[in-house]
Amino acid sequence: MSKGSVPMEVQKILNEYDLSKLSVATAGSHSALQILHGAKKEGLRTVLIVKKDRLDFYRTFSHFIDEFIIIENWSEILEKDVKDNLIALNSIIIPHGSFVEYVGSKNLQKYEVPIFGSRKILEWEATQEKKMELLRRAGIRVPKEFKSPEEVDRLVIVKLGGAKGGRGYFLASTPEEVKEGLEKLGNPSNYIIQEYVIGVPAYYHVFNSKVYNRIEITGMDIRYESNVDGLRRLPPKYASKVSPTFTVVGNIPMVLRESLLITVYNYAKSFVEVTKEVVGEEIVGPFCLESIITENGEIVVFEFSGRIVAGTNVYIDGSPYSYLYWDEPMSVGRRIAREIRKARDKGMLEEILR
Amino acid sequence: MSKGSVPMEVQKILNEYDLSKLSVATAGSHSALQILHGAKKEGLRTVLIVKKDRLDFYRTFSHFIDEFIIIENWSEILEKDVKDNLIALNSIIIPHGSFVEYVGSKNLQKYEVPIFGSRKILEWEATQEKKMELLRRAGIRVPKEFKSPEEVDRLVIVKLGGAKGGRGYFLASTPEEVKEGLEKLGNPSNYIIQEYVIGVPAYYHVFNSKVYNRIEITGMDIRYESNVDGLRRLPPKYASKVSPTFTVVGNIPMVLRESLLITVYNYAKSFVEVTKEVVGEEIVGPFCLESIITENGEIVVFEFSGRIVAGTNVYIDGSPYSYLYWDEPMSVGRRIAREIRKARDKGMLEEILR
Amino acid sequence: MSKGSVPMEVQKILNEYDLSKLSVATAGSHSALQILHGAKKEGLRTVLIVKKDRLDFYRTFSHFIDEFIIIENWSEILEKDVKDNLIALNSIIIPHGSFVEYVGSKNLQKYEVPIFGSRKILEWEATQEKKMELLRRAGIRVPKEFKSPEEVDRLVIVKLGGAKGGRGYFLASTPEEVKEGLEKLGNPSNYIIQEYVIGVPAYYHVFNSKVYNRIEITGMDIRYESNVDGLRRLPPKYASKVSPTFTVVGNIPMVLRESLLITVYNYAKSFVEVTKEVVGEEIVGPFCLESIITENGEIVVFEFSGRIVAGTNVYIDGSPYSYLYWDEPMSVGRRIAREIRKARDKGMLEEILR
Repeated sequence: MSKGSVPMEVQKILNEYDLSKLSVATAGSHSALQILHGAKKEGLRTVLIVKKDRLDFYRTFSHFIDEFIIIENWSEILEKDVKDNLIALNSIIIPHGSFVEYVGSKNLQKYEVPIFGSRKILEWEATQEKKMELLRRAGIRVPKEFKSPEEVDRLVIVKLGGAKGGRGYFLASTPEEVKEGLEKLGNPSNYIIQEYVIGVPAYYHVFNSKVYNRIEITGMDIRYESNVDGLRRLPPKYASKVSPTFTVVGNIPMVLRESLLITVYNYAKSFVEVTKEVVGEEIVGPFCLESIITENGEIVVFEFSGRIVAGTNVYIDGSPYSYLYWDEPMSVGRRIAREIRKARDKGMLEEILR
Repeated sequence: MSKGSVPMEVQKILNEYDLSKLSVATAGSHSALQILHGAKKEGLRTVLIVKKDRLDFYRTFSHFIDEFIIIENWSEILEKDVKDNLIALNSIIIPHGSFVEYVGSKNLQKYEVPIFGSRKILEWEATQEKKMELLRRAGIRVPKEFKSPEEVDRLVIVKLGGAKGGRGYFLASTPEEVKEGLEKLGNPSNYIIQEYVIGVPAYYHVFNSKVYNRIEITGMDIRYESNVDGLRRLPPKYASKVSPTFTVVGNIPMVLRESLLITVYNYAKSFVEVTKEVVGEEIVGPFCLESIITENGEIVVFEFSGRIVAGTNVYIDGSPYSYLYWDEPMSVGRRIAREIRKARDKGMLEEILR
Repeated sequence: MSKGSVPMEVQKILNEYDLSKLSVATAGSHSALQILHGAKKEGLRTVLIVKKDRLDFYRTFSHFIDEFIIIENWSEILEKDVKDNLIALNSIIIPHGSFVEYVGSKNLQKYEVPIFGSRKILEWEATQEKKMELLRRAGIRVPKEFKSPEEVDRLVIVKLGGAKGGRGYFLASTPEEVKEGLEKLGNPSNYIIQEYVIGVPAYYHVFNSKVYNRIEITGMDIRYESNVDGLRRLPPKYASKVSPTFTVVGNIPMVLRESLLITVYNYAKSFVEVTKEVVGEEIVGPFCLESIITENGEIVVFEFSGRIVAGTNVYIDGSPYSYLYWDEPMSVGRRIAREIRKARDKGMLEEILR
């Protein structure tokens, strides 16, 4: 058990694990239900770190949640007690978007509990500039970027860093509008100004499997954003008085033209390759490419997520695409658990944990 | 068989039923296919009250419809013949939105055939004012209401009472616009003026189970409304010439941010509690909370349905959420049948029938 | 083996087939994954005609693709080599939209390999005028048509012929706008000018089964079109500067009000009848009626597809409607394969092949 690049301290902990009693653990939010439900179906034990005020809800799912680690505040995830508890339960953490937000991508780098997937990619994801660099280096089409408000000469979207679910994004079309918008948000420093590409949004869920040695397209979705997706229901005379906002509140399923699916596959493959070279750690398991498709059928990727995205909740009972690989309802949560189970059985856990 | 609050006359009829030959019955519209298909899968017998001109269509599903009660007009549901027929078949009525509309919520109160779920809640649902009162008393956030056109000082939506599928709803932003709109509709008396909350619509399907003693979130949808959801595809110069209308013609699946799911669960729980206190009869089985989600992630409920909604048709083959409870395709139709079957087997039919 | 109206030459080839080793074949695009996946599940062999540059992608699905016929250009489908290869593998071609586009609907008429469904209908589909005539003769409501730009007195959509996925469609509301638009597209000759019906789009997937002697509604979808479905996310001041375009890039699931489902069924039934009379060949297997639903719940059909549509990809793992017939995940791809398998077993292949 030593060939992989699992951090030394994590490797030590993993060496002590009873692999026949592995648990999958995550925090109670984002895609936790899917992750634990899937783990249970694959015969693993399940652990939920949950805030007290959410316990009532999650208890209605105790048929697939074995252990609750109850906390008052998310910051307690970083405390020794919680970590010891997780380790005692032979836990593997599945870091979803909220988990990363609660713990912080920096703290996550040295978190002692074994984590499924790549830790490093989550640091790249946290910075808008590094994020876009990675996509560019993978040869993936990205929107034009503007270094400063002054350069803005077309419709742009201004985005703050971190996984805040689209809160604080805004549209602008002149340097003045950009500056005004930033001021309203208290002049943050971690932001990017991206060309607003005209087309339709589409989010592709991909899974890089070490066990099956292939890249799977597990599904795709359209984010449902408030208030922008509601404004379209207003007559122009009313809609023109409201500024669009982009808080993600849910997700809608979609499928893609099969010819475009091939583009997505090629993008995903390049992306995996580039993580090896540039991040120095291959992305493993689920990730997401987030795009606009133009009227010419070009796919312009404006962001990625280096872990499971909430859009996969659309497919807790399986997706049209996952069915092509599995012929049974395979959520991404369950897919992760299957990868863990198979990797354990083949003695290759080091290749998928960090 | 006497502990529940089943109306005396219905209890008498129920006492005569051959419980080993229970039928699930409903009218041929709304969610009838789902209801009967689900009942068949649970081993119950199925009865469809169907208008002659729809028989050709429903006959293509006779592999799960045991009996057709053929009528010329929906009003015949109230006739003795039909009721006798239903009773002879040991029928339990599942009252969907169209069924309630055909029979009338008042007539339904004294309909002799046993009904699944609460009858009283359907009367509360029929009056816009009582409807909103119930939500308010459950501590659920609702839109501001305006008592008269004169008070209107912002964008509002004016809604007529009764389950008419959004027909006749209109937008206005001044007292004059409200009055004009009402005039066009012949100055109806049963209407409310609600603040038009800016955000995105979302409809949550909930199931209050007496057998499993829990509240399940069975799915959610977005209503697909004509013409408002088509106008968004028109350039503003054309769209501005057409008034939006809100006729529900279909439904689109969605899932919710997991943290918002907890809000929905809490709302649903309060709502069930308040039906006990205020309506004097606990809501049982499926209901729906109908909301706008604001850009701050607040859920504002503008309406409820106290019975199965047509949006559940999205999930005849199961929903992402129902899969978390059942691990098999569980429509709300089938869920109702399972509740009936289990309640029968446990001798607790009185708790779920009225 | 001679009762059907299979073309003589095709009949000859079919006579030589080893029916115990039937293959389902199609080209690598559109709905190929679904078609071959479904065929495999029904125990048939599978053949993919695939362009070299797509091989890498399709190979990740080799668990259900038995044979790859690798080509450089789609035009090679017409070459003897490819056809011989297909025939040697006892292939039945499933002609999806891209297959018809690559081969050409005229060439398809005399293509030697047996084809599932009707060949003739695909020629009717290729011409906008014949297409609309067929719908009209079936008594289906269609949009008003304008014979020349001069007649245009309302909002219209101008459409070019052929299955180009909505590319080149444009809106106009005056004769001048129509002429300008046509000029920009190089003054094509195969186009129609249709009234733009105000309402919401909906696409119904239907299957005419000879084996089960019934018409099944297998699903429905909303097309996801770039850029028109993205423009709705722009504030009016920005949206008004961009012309909507209608390139189909994906599909979104939906269900219909059950009462409207009956209308769809009746339309589909009339349509099948009219193909017998007018086309002289009954449409067999999957087709699609493409509609706008008005605020009054009227369904106006503006187009049809006489074969499997890409919108069925939404339901590779089954649809809410297909579940009502099959109680197992039944894609349209699989449904086709089941029809072929059952027809073979019953000796009625001639009724479903052309």
